[in-house]
Amino acid sequence: MFIDDLITAIKEKDNPSVVGLDPKIDYVPRFILRDAYSKFDRTLHGMAEAIYIYNKMIIDEIFDIVPAVKPQSAYYEMYGIYGVEAYAKTIEYAKNKGLIVIADGKRNDIGSTASCYSTAYLGKTDDYRAFNPDSLTVSPYLGSDGIEPFIDDCKKYNKGIFILVKTSNKSSGQFQDLVTSDGKKVYEKVAEYVNSISLENLGANGAYGNIGAVVGATYPNEALELRKIMKNTYFLVPGYGFQGGTGESIKNCFNDNGLGAIISASRSIILAYKNEKYTGKFNEDDFAKASRQAAIDMKNDINYTLGK
Amino acid sequence: MFIDDLITAIKEKDNPSVVGLDPKIDYVPRFILRDAYSKFDRTLHGMAEAIYIYNKMIIDEIFDIVPAVKPQSAYYEMYGIYGVEAYAKTIEYAKNKGLIVIADGKRNDIGSTASCYSTAYLGKTDDYRAFNPDSLTVSPYLGSDGIEPFIDDCKKYNKGIFILVKTSNKSSGQFQDLVTSDGKKVYEKVAEYVNSISLENLGANGAYGNIGAVVGATYPNEALELRKIMKNTYFLVPGYGFQGGTGESIKNCFNDNGLGAIISASRSIILAYKNEKYTGKFNEDDFAKASRQAAIDMKNDINYTLGK
Repeated sequence: MFIDDLITAIKEKDNPSVVGLDPKIDYVPRFILRDAYSKFDRTLHGMAEAIYIYNKMIIDEIFDIVPAVKPQSAYYEMYGIYGVEAYAKTIEYAKNKGLIVIADGKRNDIGSTASCYSTAYLGKTDDYRAFNPDSLTVSPYLGSDGIEPFIDDCKKYNKGIFILVKTSNKSSGQFQDLVTSDGKKVYEKVAEYVNSISLENLGANGAYGNIGAVVGATYPNEALELRKIMKNTYFLVPGYGFQGGTGESIKNCFNDNGLGAIISASRSIILAYKNEKYTGKFNEDDFAKASRQAAIDMKNDINYTLGK
Repeated sequence: MFIDDLITAIKEKDNPSVVGLDPKIDYVPRFILRDAYSKFDRTLHGMAEAIYIYNKMIIDEIFDIVPAVKPQSAYYEMYGIYGVEAYAKTIEYAKNKGLIVIADGKRNDIGSTASCYSTAYLGKTDDYRAFNPDSLTVSPYLGSDGIEPFIDDCKKYNKGIFILVKTSNKSSGQFQDLVTSDGKKVYEKVAEYVNSISLENLGANGAYGNIGAVVGATYPNEALELRKIMKNTYFLVPGYGFQGGTGESIKNCFNDNGLGAIISASRSIILAYKNEKYTGKFNEDDFAKASRQAAIDMKNDINYTLGK
């Protein structure tokens, strides 16, 4: 099952982190842009090509260190169909390198439509894969009938989903933190639901199920409390690095045995070559080697935080 | 502004309805499939081509009757990049026919990522439009900072958004109907927020703002209450027809002057040629004419319900 594969990869690489592939065109080094624009000009096509090459070079440098990558769909959709093609190719390339791929699309709709999203990212259209990640992020506002089609495909095709519970952004409390009539907050109600379906879809590992949760690294108290509510749920934890997530908040997402969470960072890894910590050591042509070093540093940081 | 253009189109066509373009491959008549598969086989490419031709023929028959169409992204993403291309081409074709296009993607993320979705659907990447609808549906779970980038682009590019408030599906109550500490339900809190930002973005019409709400046709009592909370908000109302929405629930979405809502139907229009009401009158080759008749019947039904 997906969750077993994820845990195995985390253990093998001794690294509970995932690199967010959220590329912006002004992150891309000039030598890549020159080459892409010489072929397709500075068009949506040219920019999408540059981003794909950029991703590819980063993947080549990190695939042996990190267990997973998480391409975020919006960063590709903004280049139209060429961007979506770069997204599909990035997913394929990462998988061929042995990485687990979490497609970050936060898809959500009523059941009949959710089943189409599920087909697109987890299942098959006829015998074809439209997109072929291992997992997809899903938004819970529509309730269980918008989630169930994804669960069915997780079982059928050995895939996983991560459902938004408590997000990392500043305004996440506006609706997620509303206190309901039984004293529990909205995100706690979502958490209880997520854990119940994860428990119904337990992996061979015996502890965690195939249905994960997105829990931001920016809210340490909430993370601690959610770790208790969602005993059988793996956390995907964004907000580390540029968004201000700290060691403490990350620690609270894990169980005592060092499992239970995978920490996501994007800009701090993929844009490492522009971070003063690395600029002296790596020039623009070596941007991907800077990403490799940042990925190693992140791994060591997290493991140090976890007392390993 | 978007909302003024929408109201003008609704008045001109005397029709407060929108046709959901949510095509499935088994909806598509055989003569279209034969042609598409002869070019590209029964591949993702062939199926996406068939769906685009199907949409095009329906649009040709309804563009003079309905003010707007609403293609739902999942029904295209399931054919991969070819499907997304068919989605982009459907949007362009409908716009060129003078229709207002509501892209139904229910996108949502933290601010920095939401701004990329907004660029993709409402704004521009450099000087290019990635996708070019007039409006996008958005999911509110992440709160205001995930919504604000869309609002900025609505102003800048004369676009609109519709935010999920109370959805039409059976499980919509699971989180949306949770009662919060001040006695209001979660969807009412979302409704208050949506109306406040719509009021800040009021159109020249003086009554409704550029930020709309998705309110399901399947919950008449909630619709009545939401009409009062969201005085300045136009409702996009799915759930009519196949999902079981009735005349009463639709009526509750409108104000007394017959404005305030646009009713969406998909299967009942695009699959009309398989409905026994129309099968005797239209054969498969005339499927789009059956859709035209169903669109006219829907218009008359709604206007009759509204006492017009």
